[in-house]
Amino acid sequence: MNTFHKQSKAYTREVEVRGHLIDSMILTRIFDRVMDLKGEFQVTQFTIGTQKTDPSYARLIIKGNSTQHLEKMLQEIYREGAVPVEIESVKLQPAPADMVMPNDFYSTTNHPTHIYLDDSWVKIQHQVMDKCIIVNRAAKTARCEAIRNIRKGDLTVVGETGIRVEPPERPREGLDVFQFMSSNTSTEKPTTTLIKRIAADILETKKKRGRIIAVGGPAIIHTGGADAFAKLIRMGYVDALLAGNALAVHDVEHALFGTSLGVSVANGQSAHRGHRNHMAAINQIFKAGSLKAMVQKKILTKGIMYECVTNNVPYVLAASIRDDGPIPDAVTDMVEAQRRYREVLKDAEVVLMLSTMLHSIAVGNMLPSSVKTIAIDINPSAVTKLLDRGSGQALGVVSDVGTFVPLLLNYLEKPSR
Amino acid sequence: MNTFHKQSKAYTREVEVRGHLIDSMILTRIFDRVMDLKGEFQVTQFTIGTQKTDPSYARLIIKGNSTQHLEKMLQEIYREGAVPVEIESVKLQPAPADMVMPNDFYSTTNHPTHIYLDDSWVKIQHQVMDKCIIVNRAAKTARCEAIRNIRKGDLTVVGETGIRVEPPERPREGLDVFQFMSSNTSTEKPTTTLIKRIAADILETKKKRGRIIAVGGPAIIHTGGADAFAKLIRMGYVDALLAGNALAVHDVEHALFGTSLGVSVANGQSAHRGHRNHMAAINQIFKAGSLKAMVQKKILTKGIMYECVTNNVPYVLAASIRDDGPIPDAVTDMVEAQRRYREVLKDAEVVLMLSTMLHSIAVGNMLPSSVKTIAIDINPSAVTKLLDRGSGQALGVVSDVGTFVPLLLNYLEKPSR
Amino acid sequence: MNTFHKQSKAYTREVEVRGHLIDSMILTRIFDRVMDLKGEFQVTQFTIGTQKTDPSYARLIIKGNSTQHLEKMLQEIYREGAVPVEIESVKLQPAPADMVMPNDFYSTTNHPTHIYLDDSWVKIQHQVMDKCIIVNRAAKTARCEAIRNIRKGDLTVVGETGIRVEPPERPREGLDVFQFMSSNTSTEKPTTTLIKRIAADILETKKKRGRIIAVGGPAIIHTGGADAFAKLIRMGYVDALLAGNALAVHDVEHALFGTSLGVSVANGQSAHRGHRNHMAAINQIFKAGSLKAMVQKKILTKGIMYECVTNNVPYVLAASIRDDGPIPDAVTDMVEAQRRYREVLKDAEVVLMLSTMLHSIAVGNMLPSSVKTIAIDINPSAVTKLLDRGSGQALGVVSDVGTFVPLLLNYLEKPSR
Amino acid sequence: MNTFHKQSKAYTREVEVRGHLIDSMILTRIFDRVMDLKGEFQVTQFTIGTQKTDPSYARLIIKGNSTQHLEKMLQEIYREGAVPVEIESVKLQPAPADMVMPNDFYSTTNHPTHIYLDDSWVKIQHQVMDKCIIVNRAAKTARCEAIRNIRKGDLTVVGETGIRVEPPERPREGLDVFQFMSSNTSTEKPTTTLIKRIAADILETKKKRGRIIAVGGPAIIHTGGADAFAKLIRMGYVDALLAGNALAVHDVEHALFGTSLGVSVANGQSAHRGHRNHMAAINQIFKAGSLKAMVQKKILTKGIMYECVTNNVPYVLAASIRDDGPIPDAVTDMVEAQRRYREVLKDAEVVLMLSTMLHSIAVGNMLPSSVKTIAIDINPSAVTKLLDRGSGQALGVVSDVGTFVPLLLNYLEKPSR
Repeated sequence: MNTFHKQSKAYTREVEVRGHLIDSMILTRIFDRVMDLKGEFQVTQFTIGTQKTDPSYARLIIKGNSTQHLEKMLQEIYREGAVPVEIESVKLQPAPADMVMPNDFYSTTNHPTHIYLDDSWVKIQHQVMDKCIIVNRAAKTARCEAIRNIRKGDLTVVGETGIRVEPPERPREGLDVFQFMSSNTSTEKPTTTLIKRIAADILETKKKRGRIIAVGGPAIIHTGGADAFAKLIRMGYVDALLAGNALAVHDVEHALFGTSLGVSVANGQSAHRGHRNHMAAINQIFKAGSLKAMVQKKILTKGIMYECVTNNVPYVLAASIRDDGPIPDAVTDMVEAQRRYREVLKDAEVVLMLSTMLHSIAVGNMLPSSVKTIAIDINPSAVTKLLDRGSGQALGVVSDVGTFVPLLLNYLEKPSR
Repeated sequence: MNTFHKQSKAYTREVEVRGHLIDSMILTRIFDRVMDLKGEFQVTQFTIGTQKTDPSYARLIIKGNSTQHLEKMLQEIYREGAVPVEIESVKLQPAPADMVMPNDFYSTTNHPTHIYLDDSWVKIQHQVMDKCIIVNRAAKTARCEAIRNIRKGDLTVVGETGIRVEPPERPREGLDVFQFMSSNTSTEKPTTTLIKRIAADILETKKKRGRIIAVGGPAIIHTGGADAFAKLIRMGYVDALLAGNALAVHDVEHALFGTSLGVSVANGQSAHRGHRNHMAAINQIFKAGSLKAMVQKKILTKGIMYECVTNNVPYVLAASIRDDGPIPDAVTDMVEAQRRYREVLKDAEVVLMLSTMLHSIAVGNMLPSSVKTIAIDINPSAVTKLLDRGSGQALGVVSDVGTFVPLLLNYLEKPSR
Repeated sequence: MNTFHKQSKAYTREVEVRGHLIDSMILTRIFDRVMDLKGEFQVTQFTIGTQKTDPSYARLIIKGNSTQHLEKMLQEIYREGAVPVEIESVKLQPAPADMVMPNDFYSTTNHPTHIYLDDSWVKIQHQVMDKCIIVNRAAKTARCEAIRNIRKGDLTVVGETGIRVEPPERPREGLDVFQFMSSNTSTEKPTTTLIKRIAADILETKKKRGRIIAVGGPAIIHTGGADAFAKLIRMGYVDALLAGNALAVHDVEHALFGTSLGVSVANGQSAHRGHRNHMAAINQIFKAGSLKAMVQKKILTKGIMYECVTNNVPYVLAASIRDDGPIPDAVTDMVEAQRRYREVLKDAEVVLMLSTMLHSIAVGNMLPSSVKTIAIDINPSAVTKLLDRGSGQALGVVSDVGTFVPLLLNYLEKPSR
Repeated sequence: MNTFHKQSKAYTREVEVRGHLIDSMILTRIFDRVMDLKGEFQVTQFTIGTQKTDPSYARLIIKGNSTQHLEKMLQEIYREGAVPVEIESVKLQPAPADMVMPNDFYSTTNHPTHIYLDDSWVKIQHQVMDKCIIVNRAAKTARCEAIRNIRKGDLTVVGETGIRVEPPERPREGLDVFQFMSSNTSTEKPTTTLIKRIAADILETKKKRGRIIAVGGPAIIHTGGADAFAKLIRMGYVDALLAGNALAVHDVEHALFGTSLGVSVANGQSAHRGHRNHMAAINQIFKAGSLKAMVQKKILTKGIMYECVTNNVPYVLAASIRDDGPIPDAVTDMVEAQRRYREVLKDAEVVLMLSTMLHSIAVGNMLPSSVKTIAIDINPSAVTKLLDRGSGQALGVVSDVGTFVPLLLNYLEKPSR
């Protein structure tokens, strides 16, 4: 202790943090960061929430070997929720050119963030990760902005001071599936029980008129889950669908010919000239002009895309380099596709990710940490990758989407079971 | 052609082969073997089955660079069904010691095999792969035998002559699930359709009083499939169960406490002192003395093992190095466990492999290629490994056993759907 | 036989096929198709290649229950190389509108294809799968064309007659890695031996001035393979690079900061403010204007992209929905990105696919079946998926790209080992 | 606060805990357990370690709804390191019969544990998980014991009182590979860097004469890592080898014939009669009588098993149900095999698990949480499963053992690099 104080105070800073420091592991992570960087800390004050609903409060002195060392540690722990006791104002610099951030730009997390701007805390709008923060000083507002949208002169947050991050609290004592699972991935977990709980969550969310967004891949159709998924849409459980070109093509092939990549979904046999069915489906879409036109012309009369069109469920189909077609409905420009995905995701409460790593990761990158995401994939690596980007609000289910979706529908139809 | 004939005839041999040479790819494989070994061949006669049920016949001259080269090729193609035109007698040597085969022993395949013994063809009994053939000359019988069962002096087949192998014909135009699937693995196949077909096959097999053997791992219980699987046994669809210690322990834990490794299967919550439940289950089995005794004493009143005991379905539990316990019912000696597995597998017609790579590979090694095997695992590598050892009669389903078994039960209960 | 002839001849057609019918399994597949569709066949003539280099010839009568049934079978077997004995002309119809094919369009395979046009066989140019064939009658040429490039009135091949497909022959008796591997995937194969053989193939290809195209994902950088891969480019073993935005971003992050997603590649530690490194890399690229500009301004002085720019190795970076940025160099429009990919792939002889499923499948769809492709991924499912789309010319290696690339470089540097 | 106190004190207990409560997440887990069980807690005292080396101390009152509810919570938090302020003595009961524990037996963790016996704390010997504790009152000693070793009358710990568990502290500020990795699994980590660090750890451990145990599967030989692994043994880096029958059989096949399952490891070609090589290897072992005898008779002159015999490195080969043979050296009784495994593992400091899930899980079950374990497998699920049973001292590397082992050897031979 003595050595701690005797040493120069030049490289110390006093910080404070409050919240569920213990059970949400906030303090653990702050200690970790300091120790990882081989710094020192001294806890000068600690008030523990004596009961489980009380927040805790800690005040620490962080000490480094040099100004740079100290700054390095502070920058890390600020991201974990610590703030200096003496509040500093956020630093701003104008963007030097269109689509260029100042060198020292602050890169955002997906947790709720505030900046200390002109003597008050301002909450960041549209919080997503890996963006910069653009400030409207006059309006006292600030928002996360993607690099391509930055315009020369935009006031951009730089450095790491004057910023307060609220790390996610672990969900507690609720009834939903996120409490139900102690760990985040379902291997060696009872799948049917899990599906029942997810169904209950979906029902609860819809009761409160919360938005549920589905992200899906063509495996839904391959594995025989298309009819059940279409019914989920018809029943109103899906508020928007984010997918790629392939899901729509497979769905239309299935609706027109009963096949998926030429194989009959009903009996598993290769269909006559089945190999050309998905190209024929694409051709029919081009011929009609769009999926919507196909529905209007009564060429497309069932399936996932049909239900979306009929029930006014918005969808965005992002093209990719591996697409056949892509069909007229697919957004071929990725910058535009991202913009539309983001728009759909506004106010999402629950996101269901069904067997598509590409689109699920895209969506994960666009969500604040507070949105509940449930990822279903038969590949455990895919599930792990999705959760790594997520938060405590993410749940992974390693299962077969071809049995998962029909069973989910079952429980939604008969919730009493 | 000329060069072929001009060269010395010393290193040539005439062979013949008959069967569905084309569609079962027998001739393809024979050509492959010769070309892989850089030999020459000449087709001297070829009669193709003019209609699909007719067998084909081919006669070939195989030519090598040396006696050794020729022998090498012959040995390979004999395993694919070719036989020399001039039939040679099988060669026999006595085993030099207990549990020792003659150096040049013939190592078996899992296909039906005959030896030419004392001027007639004798069919090998208990055909399995990687065994030697022991001959009883007096009785004119021969059988596959494991090395540990060989006794000094046993007449053992050596070399590769006088042996005729019948490679498996590809199943054709039937109604069962093996025809239904064009390829052998189910990725990107409609799972529910597949389950329906497997259910139809099971019903058909039981109608003809065929034996169905299940091989299962503890994932059946983890993933919530235990009740459905127990019901399958009760309904008479399982004639014997081959498993390890873990399946029984998890099943008893589930039956006694409702948990699997301490987690409630019904609601997914960690149970009180749940971590000790599987040890407590083991303790209860030791206390009663055996699973059978637990049932008699009405301590075990439901579950997979309960149904086996109550319905007189034989089971063999093989211990492994990673077992807790192992319980008294587990066969701890592996040589004995293999013997008992083999006994149960006699006359099996269908084998269902449910989420256990260890026991499924063990069983695969013990089956002739004519037994239908269906392997379900969520891990595609596990399914691939199982099929690699199998034949055209093996079908892999990449799915979640926790949803697969309940859905299979559904279709077996209501086959009309 | 009698029944065969007695029945009406109305629904029969005589076809012929030549090539390595047995060892390339062409006849097997033709028999399969007929039997799958429950048709009949009669082999009226069969001349087997008596030696391994001789082609075989078969003439068959195919018989169905109805005109439609017969056509169905014929359409399937034509794709396997069969042609009617009485040659029919190819049928053509004009495209009804821009980007719309006639309903009955012929959908291509990735095998060399000819059409019988105005009394002679014309070879299709730019052969790729899932396209239609557009004919220039005046010039007597025909080419595969993507749906989006079709213009109203384009003469399009329809139906299945007058088309001859050459199914791939299995590679035989060569020295390259494709002969070396008996099966197509490497699980349980000696990795270092395999790498040695791939190195030998690459050396051989470059000696003959063949084009080698690399397709790569960011895992090359994550797993520590960036320096070795950059050196492969510098040494001239890569003629073009096809990738996504992420590979370039990770490579620039690694070159500028020594990190990959903030983690030091050299020592595995999290770097100071490392989380923002990939955004900072993106910002630097935007600031310079492009990767090329970064190299010219000496901001980017090493790495994969640096070597491409410096050594004039063309690259195409396709954007995707999950990209950060995307950087100015990424092609954000997928139709344009596909066009550029296809351009680069012209005359490719060997394609190396390194740990990127998205771009590898895209490339696989753009290649004729004659191009050698080698796919390396740690995920066996990814490798299997890639090979499923390929041909006998595709080789899958299940390994860690972070050890694979350095070891490959080793052998290329010291091929004598 | 008031409500807390007003309520009956009947169902409260005061507990205390000390250690690195924050950074090792001990307090987090205690809070978790109470909240999971819907109990209440009040922190009456909390002294935080003001600097990073200081332990913290907390005193809490736990409150339930009933005696049973309270006990339930206490039992959970005792396992996390909490002890009642008023120390209670451990409770003992005699075992009711051979191989039977008292119903209420205490089931152990793999963390260091003490019991309060006759007024002093006694440390448990041979700490492993899922065992009971047997007490020798006279000698004041206690040990973990497997159920099969229990004899009637053995004094067994029951209930959850009088027991103190020391949860593992997270490793901090060291130089070894466990600090180097922030998370525990290596996907998206630089493999070669990781191998360098593991090599440094091995060198450091051997310098201090620490014991390194290898657990290995046959994939070492399949993938071409046998020579490098044999050299590791010869160089003295392996103090004992734990494996199954298959590793030895494959190794002997490789040493005698240069093949693995009949495929040449040097050139990847199928060897002449290669299919019988592994049976021939088994036959040679039976003929010699044992691996040791094969070495003495100079039949086995290289390879993994040869190096073990020659360098007096102890090995235990556990048989399994899927074995061919099993060879005379394999321990066929699983209870005996477990006993020998445990014996070898005494005083192990580092355990290297190389591509064998079965034996690695077995070994994981036999280790106290303080032993460093490094698991290498190409299957991420296998690595995850191994780590789930481990502690902070476990490191998973998702890589190809066929490239990993040669590269590890490289760094061990030239550590300066």
